[in-house]
Amino acid sequence: MATVHRYKGKDGSYDWDGVIPDSYALRGAKGSTVRYLIGPAEKSPNFEIRYFEVEPGGQTSLDFHAHDHGVVVVRGKGKVLLAQGEEISLSFGDVLYIRPYEMHRLVPIGDEPFGFICVVPAKR
Amino acid sequence: MATVHRYKGKDGSYDWDGVIPDSYALRGAKGSTVRYLIGPAEKSPNFEIRYFEVEPGGQTSLDFHAHDHGVVVVRGKGKVLLAQGEEISLSFGDVLYIRPYEMHRLVPIGDEPFGFICVVPAKR
Repeated sequence: MATVHRYKGKDGSYDWDGVIPDSYALRGAKGSTVRYLIGPAEKSPNFEIRYFEVEPGGQTSLDFHAHDHGVVVVRGKGKVLLAQGEEISLSFGDVLYIRPYEMHRLVPIGDEPFGFICVVPAKR
Repeated sequence: MATVHRYKGKDGSYDWDGVIPDSYALRGAKGSTVRYLIGPAEKSPNFEIRYFEVEPGGQTSLDFHAHDHGVVVVRGKGKVLLAQGEEISLSFGDVLYIRPYEMHRLVPIGDEPFGFICVVPAKR
C-alpha cells in the first residue's frame, strides 16, 4: 500500500506527520536535524529520501563515502564545501549531485535555516 | 566533480539551467512533462531524480512496474489513483511512497499545474 507523509510545515518551515526529527551530530555535524521521509520505516529497497535542516552557524558532517547524494534545496541559502577548498553556493530549488567519494560538507549562509531534500541509495 | 543545476523558475514555476523539459506521452500520459535533474547525464549509478509537471486536465501514465517511486509535491494539488479505485489527495510538501508493483497514476486537481519531484532507482 502506498504511504503518505502529510506536510505540516508553516511559514516556510518543514515538518511531516509521522516523521520525527532526529538530531545529527556525527562526524562534526552541528545544529543539524534529519527527517527520514522515505527509508527504513517504509522498507524502501532502493533509495531513501531525507530532509536535512541546518541552523545558522551549524554544519553537516564532513563526509567522504562510496555512495552518492542527490540534493534539492527547499529552504534558505547555503553552500557545499568540497575538496581542495572548492565551494558552490546553493539556494531555493538548486539541485546538487555529489558523486561517490567526493568529500563534502553543507553549511548555511545567512540567518535562516538551510533545508534540503537529500536522496541516497538504500544500501550504503 | 559535484554538479549543480541552478533553479530558474519564477512565480512558483520550476525550471533549471541545463535541464531540458521533455514531453511524456507513454502509456496514456497527457499534458505531462519530465525534467531529468539527476540521471543519465550525471551517470548516477544508484538513483535518478526527476521533476514531473502535469497540466490541468492531464495525467501521468498508468504504471505498474517492479521499481518504487518516492514523490515530493512542490507545486499545485493533485491525487494519486491506485488499484481498486483507491485514491489519495496530495498538495505541497506531501511525501508519497509508491511500492514496487503498485498500480498508479497521478492527476492534477484544480487550475494550477501539478508538480512533483520523483525519485526512482537507476536500474529499472
